[in-house]
Amino acid sequence: MTRIAYFGPRGTFSEQAARTFAGAEELVPAETIPKALAAVRAGDADAACVPVENSVEGPVTATLDGLVEGQPLVAVAEALLPVHFSVLTRGDGAPIRTVASHPHALAQVRHWLEANLPDAQPLASSSTASAAVGVQDGEFDAAVTAPVAVEHYPLTVLATGVADVADARTRFLLLRPPGPLPEPTGADRTSVVASAANRTGTLAALLNELATRSINLTRLDARPTKSNFGEYHFFIDFEGHLAEPRIGDAVAALRRRCAVRFLGSHPRADGLPGTREPGAENADFVAAGDWVAAVRKGGVA
Amino acid sequence: MTRIAYFGPRGTFSEQAARTFAGAEELVPAETIPKALAAVRAGDADAACVPVENSVEGPVTATLDGLVEGQPLVAVAEALLPVHFSVLTRGDGAPIRTVASHPHALAQVRHWLEANLPDAQPLASSSTASAAVGVQDGEFDAAVTAPVAVEHYPLTVLATGVADVADARTRFLLLRPPGPLPEPTGADRTSVVASAANRTGTLAALLNELATRSINLTRLDARPTKSNFGEYHFFIDFEGHLAEPRIGDAVAALRRRCAVRFLGSHPRADGLPGTREPGAENADFVAAGDWVAAVRKGGVA
Repeated sequence: MTRIAYFGPRGTFSEQAARTFAGAEELVPAETIPKALAAVRAGDADAACVPVENSVEGPVTATLDGLVEGQPLVAVAEALLPVHFSVLTRGDGAPIRTVASHPHALAQVRHWLEANLPDAQPLASSSTASAAVGVQDGEFDAAVTAPVAVEHYPLTVLATGVADVADARTRFLLLRPPGPLPEPTGADRTSVVASAANRTGTLAALLNELATRSINLTRLDARPTKSNFGEYHFFIDFEGHLAEPRIGDAVAALRRRCAVRFLGSHPRADGLPGTREPGAENADFVAAGDWVAAVRKGGVA
Repeated sequence: MTRIAYFGPRGTFSEQAARTFAGAEELVPAETIPKALAAVRAGDADAACVPVENSVEGPVTATLDGLVEGQPLVAVAEALLPVHFSVLTRGDGAPIRTVASHPHALAQVRHWLEANLPDAQPLASSSTASAAVGVQDGEFDAAVTAPVAVEHYPLTVLATGVADVADARTRFLLLRPPGPLPEPTGADRTSVVASAANRTGTLAALLNELATRSINLTRLDARPTKSNFGEYHFFIDFEGHLAEPRIGDAVAALRRRCAVRFLGSHPRADGLPGTREPGAENADFVAAGDWVAAVRKGGVA
């Protein structure tokens, strides 16, 4: 049985996401994102389920920073969850002076809080579900949580379906130690982190390796190396699967140019097929390689 | 007298940064970054001082998101502050069960807290100084603050010089409504936000406009547009001043390619001069333009 460590405690969006990956997994909560990754690296879990990007708040930096250091982990699957929240209280009629949640969640319900709980001070907790635990313990008066949280904690639902942006979504990754890649599906995403020296044109050169092969970027995030201001790790996501000739060609080119860590090729949760352009289909790469091989042998020109 | 709204309350790093900009300003605290920007847009302040980037935690997303919408604001100066913290308590000997600060600050003292206050629950507050107010009010037991905070709040210093990364720094911007640009100094930074359609090669094409003119990027951040997953505003910082021919040429090229908002040209706080390469000096741009003009008149070839 696969053991999945998720960013917990019980009742988080990460738990909801972990449930989507298969039926028979054992799900184990980890208190923080670094601890979920550490559980896989230590062999205490087979995989970790953590958020990587939200359509409103952007990248989940703890996940990105956790992937660039330590033993390599690769994404083998992703899940896309709609993000609307429930607001939970003890239901004892006491005034609501504090409302807690993960900072990403608080940022996504700011307008709702201003309109509905203007006197409550927002406080950030380590996760949405730990805020529910805090309400239970009397530490906070209200928690902004995943809808599933109320199934785990005996609290009262003050409001549900709460979200400032109606169609906000969060993308989650299922991360494992390196091993056989998932099969290509025609609607895949590949992720790498590229760490290049700070020289004029370095990033443009990396992106050109993708653009010149008609590979569409889906995300680019620069995270500081934490040593020198102005030096970054570039997290680059793009359409396609490493098994495809055009993607393998591009990733090899990145590897020639700088330090690259492979972060996985896996099916896209939204099922969108990769962009293709004439002359940059996989068949074109194969045919052009075959032609060069033939020319080298003096066969054709 | 110039009135500067800073990300407060009193005793934040933003207040420290605002003090570096000149002597005789009136400093007015704003509760949040959006409120500091709104004060300038409403004419209640002449300028706003807010953090934009930390060498460990990366971009300050509230500042980036606040610059892309609403009336345009431009950076006219920046300040670079070393970031080490003080930990303040009421000094009444009570056990420290909670320790509050801005999420960026908590992230930068995580190891220190684990080693020195392992039983205290970290809680995020809206600013470092508001955490100090919370300690005063009995809401939290300890606050991680700027060193200057203890001058404003009657609290006890439990520790000082606290930082997981010894040379962490935060960069602050002084933002004003559009007006005459600061004079070029030879060690300047220019910032734009470019919003391009999601098409293969779009970002590479934008960065090529800089690289081909030997202009060195200093930062690139993708912020979600909040509407469609996979669509981003690109915040691009690079060496040089818009008054320089090579920079004006590049910014015009970006403007041809996509929607661009100018976010300012101002002296770099670290005084580093821009990278220059043969054939891409400002004199080369002027001479080449003069030559084309002469050729157009049939003068030379």
